[in-house]
Amino acid sequence: MSDLDLQQFNVATDLALEAKELAESPKGGPIPGISSEVEKGDGITVTLLHVQNEQGEQAIGKMKGRYVTIEVPGLRGGDTALQDKVATAFAKHFESFLKDLNIAPMARVLIVGLGNVNVTPDALGPLVVENVMVTRHFFELMPDQVAPGYRPVSAVAPGVLGTTGIESSDIIQGITEKSSPDLIIAIDALASRSLERVNTTIQIADTGIHPGSGIGNKRKGLTKEQLGVPCIAIGVPTVVYASTIVSNAFELMKAHLERQNGDTNQILGLLNGMDENERLGLVREVLTPVGHDLLVTPKEVDEFIEDIANIIASGLNAALHEAVDSSNVAAYTH
Amino acid sequence: MSDLDLQQFNVATDLALEAKELAESPKGGPIPGISSEVEKGDGITVTLLHVQNEQGEQAIGKMKGRYVTIEVPGLRGGDTALQDKVATAFAKHFESFLKDLNIAPMARVLIVGLGNVNVTPDALGPLVVENVMVTRHFFELMPDQVAPGYRPVSAVAPGVLGTTGIESSDIIQGITEKSSPDLIIAIDALASRSLERVNTTIQIADTGIHPGSGIGNKRKGLTKEQLGVPCIAIGVPTVVYASTIVSNAFELMKAHLERQNGDTNQILGLLNGMDENERLGLVREVLTPVGHDLLVTPKEVDEFIEDIANIIASGLNAALHEAVDSSNVAAYTH
Amino acid sequence: MSDLDLQQFNVATDLALEAKELAESPKGGPIPGISSEVEKGDGITVTLLHVQNEQGEQAIGKMKGRYVTIEVPGLRGGDTALQDKVATAFAKHFESFLKDLNIAPMARVLIVGLGNVNVTPDALGPLVVENVMVTRHFFELMPDQVAPGYRPVSAVAPGVLGTTGIESSDIIQGITEKSSPDLIIAIDALASRSLERVNTTIQIADTGIHPGSGIGNKRKGLTKEQLGVPCIAIGVPTVVYASTIVSNAFELMKAHLERQNGDTNQILGLLNGMDENERLGLVREVLTPVGHDLLVTPKEVDEFIEDIANIIASGLNAALHEAVDSSNVAAYTH
Amino acid sequence: MSDLDLQQFNVATDLALEAKELAESPKGGPIPGISSEVEKGDGITVTLLHVQNEQGEQAIGKMKGRYVTIEVPGLRGGDTALQDKVATAFAKHFESFLKDLNIAPMARVLIVGLGNVNVTPDALGPLVVENVMVTRHFFELMPDQVAPGYRPVSAVAPGVLGTTGIESSDIIQGITEKSSPDLIIAIDALASRSLERVNTTIQIADTGIHPGSGIGNKRKGLTKEQLGVPCIAIGVPTVVYASTIVSNAFELMKAHLERQNGDTNQILGLLNGMDENERLGLVREVLTPVGHDLLVTPKEVDEFIEDIANIIASGLNAALHEAVDSSNVAAYTH
Repeated sequence: MSDLDLQQFNVATDLALEAKELAESPKGGPIPGISSEVEKGDGITVTLLHVQNEQGEQAIGKMKGRYVTIEVPGLRGGDTALQDKVATAFAKHFESFLKDLNIAPMARVLIVGLGNVNVTPDALGPLVVENVMVTRHFFELMPDQVAPGYRPVSAVAPGVLGTTGIESSDIIQGITEKSSPDLIIAIDALASRSLERVNTTIQIADTGIHPGSGIGNKRKGLTKEQLGVPCIAIGVPTVVYASTIVSNAFELMKAHLERQNGDTNQILGLLNGMDENERLGLVREVLTPVGHDLLVTPKEVDEFIEDIANIIASGLNAALHEAVDSSNVAAYTH
Repeated sequence: MSDLDLQQFNVATDLALEAKELAESPKGGPIPGISSEVEKGDGITVTLLHVQNEQGEQAIGKMKGRYVTIEVPGLRGGDTALQDKVATAFAKHFESFLKDLNIAPMARVLIVGLGNVNVTPDALGPLVVENVMVTRHFFELMPDQVAPGYRPVSAVAPGVLGTTGIESSDIIQGITEKSSPDLIIAIDALASRSLERVNTTIQIADTGIHPGSGIGNKRKGLTKEQLGVPCIAIGVPTVVYASTIVSNAFELMKAHLERQNGDTNQILGLLNGMDENERLGLVREVLTPVGHDLLVTPKEVDEFIEDIANIIASGLNAALHEAVDSSNVAAYTH
Repeated sequence: MSDLDLQQFNVATDLALEAKELAESPKGGPIPGISSEVEKGDGITVTLLHVQNEQGEQAIGKMKGRYVTIEVPGLRGGDTALQDKVATAFAKHFESFLKDLNIAPMARVLIVGLGNVNVTPDALGPLVVENVMVTRHFFELMPDQVAPGYRPVSAVAPGVLGTTGIESSDIIQGITEKSSPDLIIAIDALASRSLERVNTTIQIADTGIHPGSGIGNKRKGLTKEQLGVPCIAIGVPTVVYASTIVSNAFELMKAHLERQNGDTNQILGLLNGMDENERLGLVREVLTPVGHDLLVTPKEVDEFIEDIANIIASGLNAALHEAVDSSNVAAYTH
Repeated sequence: MSDLDLQQFNVATDLALEAKELAESPKGGPIPGISSEVEKGDGITVTLLHVQNEQGEQAIGKMKGRYVTIEVPGLRGGDTALQDKVATAFAKHFESFLKDLNIAPMARVLIVGLGNVNVTPDALGPLVVENVMVTRHFFELMPDQVAPGYRPVSAVAPGVLGTTGIESSDIIQGITEKSSPDLIIAIDALASRSLERVNTTIQIADTGIHPGSGIGNKRKGLTKEQLGVPCIAIGVPTVVYASTIVSNAFELMKAHLERQNGDTNQILGLLNGMDENERLGLVREVLTPVGHDLLVTPKEVDEFIEDIANIIASGLNAALHEAVDSSNVAAYTH
């Protein structure tokens, strides 16, 4: 294979779940330093993944910490009842992060919507910021009049480097120093390996955001080390590389042929024997020079992004404010 | 191969140029009933394709008529000087259609922007309509005061079946009967087979628009037979099926391996021997049931669509009004 | 007063209620040919006004027919509970128009959103069209599968003369001929005489729309005579002339001074003796030449227009489809 | 007059020029501590106003400093040639501020777009930010490759208190500390006293922005004292109080009657004798309780704001970068 110069290389996924799947794929067994658990029901699959130590970090290339991945293949159908269920599930899991991090009911929260509002698949963060309940100014200006059950929440969309000229992490650090939140929640659009996960999956992680994540130009990260307060990251894959669509298709074809008892070696040739990283390397080597390895997004991206931004905003409103009822969270956004 | 139940089937491309490439692909030779000619220069490739008779129609599955395809791979770079060149080239070729159809300088023109303005990759038509010069009302209300060098132009975006409840072809027919244009120009977003053609290619055709073209729900066509006046169709591929990305990648890999003197049969197995239609059939059979065969569009779709809509609007303004200078057409839109 | 060249002239209001108030103002008594009735409650004032004959038409300058005006001063507060009440009240009154016009439960309806979507105070009609439930295509394509309790509804936004080059009434006539509705509902933004009515008032009328109404360039009307089917007009004042703000202020000052037992003649001079038409004529004579008599709209126009468009869309959904519950109409729009 | 309880009170204008006109109005003579100079030509009137000392500050209620006001009544006509002239004039006057403040050609600039992008008349600042050339990141990431004639420029739109929960001045202070600009340019929408100045006037001031200016919720200011670097404020009146429209109309009526040799005392009564502050006080006393004293904006606000944001962005690009030609500044924005 050396003539193809294939090497083990870092596969572009921002989802810890996909990174784990990839790490498992050659051999199939459990990975030391990684524990995971799956809950299913109501068309929603939730995977609780724990990267326990450095061994786990190196195995899947993701930071130590807890990751919850909520997968809802039916989400693209535009079913508002399902959207409400997902918002409720999201709120429940998000609350467990607040609890694990010992965030008090009145602790101040800054919600950060990363991304470029003018690039639809990168607009998730700014759209969530537009839809969350912002209350910090009431606590500052008329603290006596705020109803019980709310906490001080602020929200900003710092823009992206290409349009502001400033790293968004620098902007957030400056705002953090002036407004002193106790917790930062950062929302960002991600790249996935799998077209079916695009706009149907939400990841929550207590790791903050690390350099190189996300689909835009956000080179520095948002982490507790840098900001001085914990940062929970919420991500939704909204784009996928053309090369990963191709590589994924090979895998599906292989599985399809195996189910039909076909001779996969004969039909797929040497491709059959490659592991996913090798195959993706080959595909990229071919597509990249001719400009085919673009990041793509489904045609219906406008509606998908809006729907999922509403789900996250509703879920955050319910999880952050006790006065907002988690059984009917959607009523608080529009 | 019968176990895979592959059949010759209609490949989803709205570009006549791609349909011809596909028809050629198994054998490679010229196709009876089809003539074509290529002009290159300035980063722009123009293919003049003529489907001359029914034999040609059946060979490539496109209606008898003239098709001009303008390909500009550099268009995604956001280079405004190149955009101006493309607008000028587009205007020149569009004018030749006006001449071939004997459209007089004062003949009335109705520009129809098909598609859904709220679905970015389908918004091309409505965006062009927003940017063209509309003059018909001046001719109706104050005919004596219109400067020479302009013709009566009207423009409508009829919406799509899913949002209006009415076929857009019915809406256009009704408007045509009330406003009596001499020519209709219909602009629509298309599906391509190739990711590299998406948002870099413009097709002009004197065939009008036929049922099943375009990416939205436009089931009836816009043709001279139906409307009573000629219809020139302008299309830009803005989406591509995931399956065609995959099938295309195979072809690129095969060519790549052949250049390296690899044993393509060994590496690619039976896939190597399939022609494109067979291979695409296999890919679809695999992807469709698992929901992977989505229409996708590049991440930067918002900017690409806006740029190419401006190019077309500028080119139409120059081609339709003698008073608008075709050497600097871009100044007339914003 | 002849030196001021004041004359009785047509005061720019599109609201029949205001035209009636103006006609009453010099004398104060009831107007022959006009009957009216007022219902109040829940912060909502509903006036049922009937222009009974030509005498009434001439007295107030509005066509023979029934007009319902719903006034809700609190609507600008953004209170969603009040918005739901208004949608329900609107639906109830709209249903009485359907009954008076003998529109059967399955009769086909075409909703027309007049105005320019890119001019915020003129975007009401297109915004309503974006939010109503459209069902006609289901009846056309799969009549057996439509659930009971729905009727065939289509919806179009024909644009304005300045952007399409075609009278919107011509476009609607063409669409009507091709799609054969039994009833047309036309929504338009209006001009009011009073800033307090702007974005707080909805008028429903069985008269259709007559030339010169509305705030944009819609010169022909939409009437039963022209379209062959009845047309119910829904209007919301979204703009007011600067001159009417001024003239209105005089009236308020006069009332204010009278309450304080001031000598209004001394304070207001001859202005005190003018009736409203005289005074407005004077104000216009002064403001128009210096470019001060602009149409203006409140600063918060974006939000007000969106809220009231949602109210109307919700109310129409409830009034038109039996399956949509009129007690909770807002749930069907977003 | 005591029964009306009129008092000298602060008239709501953000324009220094209007504040000066008001201060002059009772007597008409020059004001100690204020110097001013007017240049006219090409349909553009430029007033250079200098508040020289505390006496001047108190007389007109505006901070010590230099104010340039560019008035272009023809700007509402949508004439692109005039827009280019205004951009060039703006660039010229802006450059004189840079010179007066000793801003070096390579000094770093942060452009701040104040206001709410979702409230059209308050969206001026964010729209300018969207259209200026941002270059700081090139200087940070690849300093060797930046062409000569450019300086490092960054740009942010911090949002408003009501949507972020954080004072925009706090956000800007945080960003300033992290990104270390040498100069801040703050753009904001203003309130005027005169409808004719709305969207036709640009004010430049070296005073920064002081609490209570602007039309939104920006309670703290942006000044050299607070930020540590100079702040040039650019403002455009986009709204006017209904009460000032009324009061202004009285003045116009009075002038109109005087030109006709009418007995203004007889016609206007005591109103005739009031100075502008008294009269405005009376009008407000009447309009405010009945909810008539709204901030209003012309119907065509969408287009006006976009045009004037482009003018300012073009002018800033030319004034800030030597490589951008001030004779053709408009080509650098879109």
